[in-house]
Amino acid sequence: MTSTLPRTVDPACLQEVLDGRWAHVRRDAREQLGDPEYAPVYGESVQEARERVTRLAGELAATGRVGLGFPKEYGGEADAGGSVTSIEMLAYGDLSLMVKAGVQWGLFGGAVQLLGTRRHHDAYLPDIMSFALPGCFAMTETGHGSDVQQLRTTCTYDPDTRTFDLHTPHEAARKDYIGNAAKDGRMAVVFAQLVTQGEPRGVHAWLVPIRDEDGNPVPGVTIGDDGPKAGLLGVDNGRLTFDHVRVPREMLLDRYGQVAEDGTYTSSIENETRRFFTMLGTLVRGRVSVGGSAGSATRMALDIAVRYGDVRRQFAAPGRDREIVLNDYLVHQRKLLPALATSYALAFAQEELVGTMHDVQTAVHEHGEAVDEAAQRELESRAAGLKVANTWHATRTIQTCREACGGAGYLAENRLPQLKADTDVFTTFEGDNTVLLQLVAKGLLTGYRDAFGSLDGWGRVAFVADLVREAVLERTAARGLIARLVDAVPGRDDDVPLRDRGWQLRMFEFREKHTLEGAIRRLRRNAATASSPTHPMEPFAVFNSVQDHVLRTAQAHVDRIVLEAFVAGIERAADPGARALLDTLCDLYALSTIEADKGWFLEHGQLTAARSKALTGTVNALLGELRPHMVTLVDGFGIPHVWKNAAILEEEAGRQEAMHREDTAAQDARLRAAGDTAPGGSRDDTATSVDVPPGQ
Amino acid sequence: MTSTLPRTVDPACLQEVLDGRWAHVRRDAREQLGDPEYAPVYGESVQEARERVTRLAGELAATGRVGLGFPKEYGGEADAGGSVTSIEMLAYGDLSLMVKAGVQWGLFGGAVQLLGTRRHHDAYLPDIMSFALPGCFAMTETGHGSDVQQLRTTCTYDPDTRTFDLHTPHEAARKDYIGNAAKDGRMAVVFAQLVTQGEPRGVHAWLVPIRDEDGNPVPGVTIGDDGPKAGLLGVDNGRLTFDHVRVPREMLLDRYGQVAEDGTYTSSIENETRRFFTMLGTLVRGRVSVGGSAGSATRMALDIAVRYGDVRRQFAAPGRDREIVLNDYLVHQRKLLPALATSYALAFAQEELVGTMHDVQTAVHEHGEAVDEAAQRELESRAAGLKVANTWHATRTIQTCREACGGAGYLAENRLPQLKADTDVFTTFEGDNTVLLQLVAKGLLTGYRDAFGSLDGWGRVAFVADLVREAVLERTAARGLIARLVDAVPGRDDDVPLRDRGWQLRMFEFREKHTLEGAIRRLRRNAATASSPTHPMEPFAVFNSVQDHVLRTAQAHVDRIVLEAFVAGIERAADPGARALLDTLCDLYALSTIEADKGWFLEHGQLTAARSKALTGTVNALLGELRPHMVTLVDGFGIPHVWKNAAILEEEAGRQEAMHREDTAAQDARLRAAGDTAPGGSRDDTATSVDVPPGQ
Repeated sequence: MTSTLPRTVDPACLQEVLDGRWAHVRRDAREQLGDPEYAPVYGESVQEARERVTRLAGELAATGRVGLGFPKEYGGEADAGGSVTSIEMLAYGDLSLMVKAGVQWGLFGGAVQLLGTRRHHDAYLPDIMSFALPGCFAMTETGHGSDVQQLRTTCTYDPDTRTFDLHTPHEAARKDYIGNAAKDGRMAVVFAQLVTQGEPRGVHAWLVPIRDEDGNPVPGVTIGDDGPKAGLLGVDNGRLTFDHVRVPREMLLDRYGQVAEDGTYTSSIENETRRFFTMLGTLVRGRVSVGGSAGSATRMALDIAVRYGDVRRQFAAPGRDREIVLNDYLVHQRKLLPALATSYALAFAQEELVGTMHDVQTAVHEHGEAVDEAAQRELESRAAGLKVANTWHATRTIQTCREACGGAGYLAENRLPQLKADTDVFTTFEGDNTVLLQLVAKGLLTGYRDAFGSLDGWGRVAFVADLVREAVLERTAARGLIARLVDAVPGRDDDVPLRDRGWQLRMFEFREKHTLEGAIRRLRRNAATASSPTHPMEPFAVFNSVQDHVLRTAQAHVDRIVLEAFVAGIERAADPGARALLDTLCDLYALSTIEADKGWFLEHGQLTAARSKALTGTVNALLGELRPHMVTLVDGFGIPHVWKNAAILEEEAGRQEAMHREDTAAQDARLRAAGDTAPGGSRDDTATSVDVPPGQ
Repeated sequence: MTSTLPRTVDPACLQEVLDGRWAHVRRDAREQLGDPEYAPVYGESVQEARERVTRLAGELAATGRVGLGFPKEYGGEADAGGSVTSIEMLAYGDLSLMVKAGVQWGLFGGAVQLLGTRRHHDAYLPDIMSFALPGCFAMTETGHGSDVQQLRTTCTYDPDTRTFDLHTPHEAARKDYIGNAAKDGRMAVVFAQLVTQGEPRGVHAWLVPIRDEDGNPVPGVTIGDDGPKAGLLGVDNGRLTFDHVRVPREMLLDRYGQVAEDGTYTSSIENETRRFFTMLGTLVRGRVSVGGSAGSATRMALDIAVRYGDVRRQFAAPGRDREIVLNDYLVHQRKLLPALATSYALAFAQEELVGTMHDVQTAVHEHGEAVDEAAQRELESRAAGLKVANTWHATRTIQTCREACGGAGYLAENRLPQLKADTDVFTTFEGDNTVLLQLVAKGLLTGYRDAFGSLDGWGRVAFVADLVREAVLERTAARGLIARLVDAVPGRDDDVPLRDRGWQLRMFEFREKHTLEGAIRRLRRNAATASSPTHPMEPFAVFNSVQDHVLRTAQAHVDRIVLEAFVAGIERAADPGARALLDTLCDLYALSTIEADKGWFLEHGQLTAARSKALTGTVNALLGELRPHMVTLVDGFGIPHVWKNAAILEEEAGRQEAMHREDTAAQDARLRAAGDTAPGGSRDDTATSVDVPPGQ
């Protein structure tokens, strides 16, 4: 338990490990995005913010930096991983610009690229990339957010006119929260229920003009404004309503489903639900980007709070000549250090996810390989799980950082309020977190076979006769390493040191497997009760009564994925000091995660009461070991100083020094003045707390 | 475990219990503050918000409603409890106005009233009450927020000119976050270190002009603007710096300390620290108001989220003809119902606190009785503890409510963003929550004898030789009732039903007592180590190594106070239905609190593994019982509909009905069209999820 950490660690070595496979994209951003223009601006009106962000989006397009994800024949680089990493770097700046860019080039451009075909690419991708054609991704409806398959907008083919009739049947079907809609969008990718030859064919997407050259809504399209929001003021979210709008046949994005002139429907994917989720699956990049951006914003907040806590002092203490810096307080360390460890863990997991996404998408879209459905479903599950973990971590941690900075944390000039407000929507957009956890759980329950990425319906699968899947854990990238560590743990858990990595991994595995098995058992029992002739259980109750259990399964799964990614990431550290520091940080991540759920581990016999109490002591000891390295750890994030834009980082250290000089001078003067009295004699009455008699 | 709840409960009966002792103040506010003017406004600039709120503050003054807390001879009502309740009601409206009113009449006016003497009252109270004299409460400094005793601003008496010299020695001593400073304030109550005849005399307060008739800063005063903030845009927080400003002798607020013309210092309280905390203690009203206001904002957020969750539908389910309303999902209930139970619990505890505060202050200030120091210290501890509990509950719960409303919860028009942003500072102003918990802990460790309300220094008390206090719990108002319930619990805990109130109370008591005893034991052990000649422990480490344990003690104490207040509050319910509902809700509060800390109860042998698992089942069962009463429970808060200002409350139900009508009509049409095919034949291909074969 004695620390083996060196006194100092070179943060550049940490940064190198974190930078990972797309280090070149990060380096480029650090060098090129230093322009103060990209910094967030405080106190703007909604209109000012929107205008500024629109202008910046155009400038960003002009740098050519937005093309990473697009095909090479249109000037892009066909680098899916690079494009997501680039968004993640943009998220260190103004988050409105990040979201605006994500809407334009990720969602809108991505949908045209991945759901459209050659003729759409030729006609629109160049203007989309240059921002000459700002567009919307119009999926969500007021009444159907996460439940996309239930959208109520209809698009009905009429062979006589060879056009579709796009229609919003009622207000709940209105497209809502649509970025780029309120002000800039000229076209929109609109998702609606296709009907042709009198048959519903499920959700498809069309490319639809919504504004004319002068920026006025085209006939039949009503555009509303979502108005001021908690944050992201620079993003013009709005509402779209369609009143029997005529859409030419060729505007159907028809990669996965085609309508012939006479209205005949064809698709290479026969099953409608499978087709729908195949289409949606191509758009996973958006969800990966949100998770990555949440990670950046969280690291920024931690950077600010840790640096401030290292210079801001509060309260005197006996035996110290100056007031104590905040980071020296155990409870302050408890607030910041486990969060910091989690941010490292999530960064490694995100890096792994981006790599997987890149490889899966490159195989299909660049090398023309067939989709590996299992790999695709698992990718979607990982993307969903890490989006949840990253965004809830962001919400919690940025809140903690703001509180850790006291009143200063409430002022816009110190950045934290905007980080909190801007990222707040991340937990519910690109899939509501609770719904996404259900998706993850569904994958675990069915082994991805039937999951399809559907956002509802972990429930319905309980009726599948062969839900009786064995709970088998799929190991992550580092499976060999993980297995070795786990297998090396001796039999009796109680004797294993808490800092044994294999034991920690085994605890995470055990919790996932046991929770999953329990969920399967309970679902099966409920399903049996449901069909009982005497006391049938309402079908909805079959799922609903175990919903909390099922979501815990997903959470335990995500925690394990993240820990395994951390363990694998440490292997990439060449520098022994950096490696030792990451090892200790990983202990903190693993043990504080177990500590937070110690009730479960106690309930399930995985911790004795004594060991559980020892766990708290070990976490506190780790905080003590890591305390001297707090600033090094945020340095490791590699956030350029000019990106931070927090006044307290510039001012606080200087203020403290000035106060110290003044205090010292005043004390000297007092001592001189009291030269002929007893030493310290005149000081008993001062309010200096170190001199106040105990108990006063 | 079977529910004994009636099918419906009259919310008016709940409201009557919650309204409590100052029901007349609440009734008056409900009737008189319905003016749409008092509603929050979204999307304003900082300047617009400030101007509007200044105007409203003037109008509020003109209604006479701000005088509740002031002496009768100046047109007030000398009703301390009423004044705090009035602020709590104002907090249902625009929180900027609430804070502005709190600054003007609570902090600024309250300081003049309670720290000043007759001549200050005669000269200033009328103008303060009418808002003709807007003022500031200038205590906090950039470098000393919670550590008020360490303020660095000095005020030095010069007998030659019979004036004080008020001075800011360096930037860390600048007054910061001061409400009313940036725009409106004409005077400020400034806290500074008094020096007279060369002797420091500790912190005192002066009434100091800061702006002239034309609104310009007076010579020597520099006024800065804190600029945009996370929320509370209508409050003009600013910074004050004093460059050797001359303050006339009579402007010292001299109730607790006087300076004669020749500079001789006198005070009825000899000990400087005791004097300081006596002064501060009179100002407890501010902290009580913040807790109460946080309670109002939280209830408003719950009202919005619960009503929305009752009409908003998401996802189909087998056996249900319409999509499921959010409130029917177990996990949605898990988010909202324990929070709702906690809001009831805190409302009862707050009501009890306000009553105690009123009685203590009325005894001293109206009836001229001597201060009961123990009662005053305990009041301060309760005020601190409930401020912490209310404000962290607000931060967590408003966040949960915003997420529970999905994208709609992010739009300003639905109120939740502003509730979150405005209340966010509550956790760190009027005392940082972590520091306040230390204050509570200090009171517990020393039995309030030496606590003084000091915000640092639970640490220092460990050096008091007789820290060896026995851990004895002081019972709250309902002590007789509580004792009967606890004593009625049979011996063996494992057999007692989880819903036995006595058992629940005993668990809360046990946790507090055991945690407190452990903290005392550890502090004593550390103190012994500190003086070890061979391996001395650094004095700071004596406290710091147990800081987390000590704060848990305070938390456990506050939880018990709150539960006991809930139990006592139920006794006031005359209606049997309301009483039964509150009883069930109290079970949920108690058991979900134990569940959240089940790790501790398992570690300490208070729950077996089996009983701990049963606890989760019982909480879920309670959620099921309370589900039909969710809307009744928010109705019980008695928030007038016109105060809510959330667009979704007006629109969502209508949208859902329109969609349902449309869906039903479409289904009828399909059935008619399919009249000659097999029943439902044409529907297999629709995306209606109930019809999709399992696994698709």
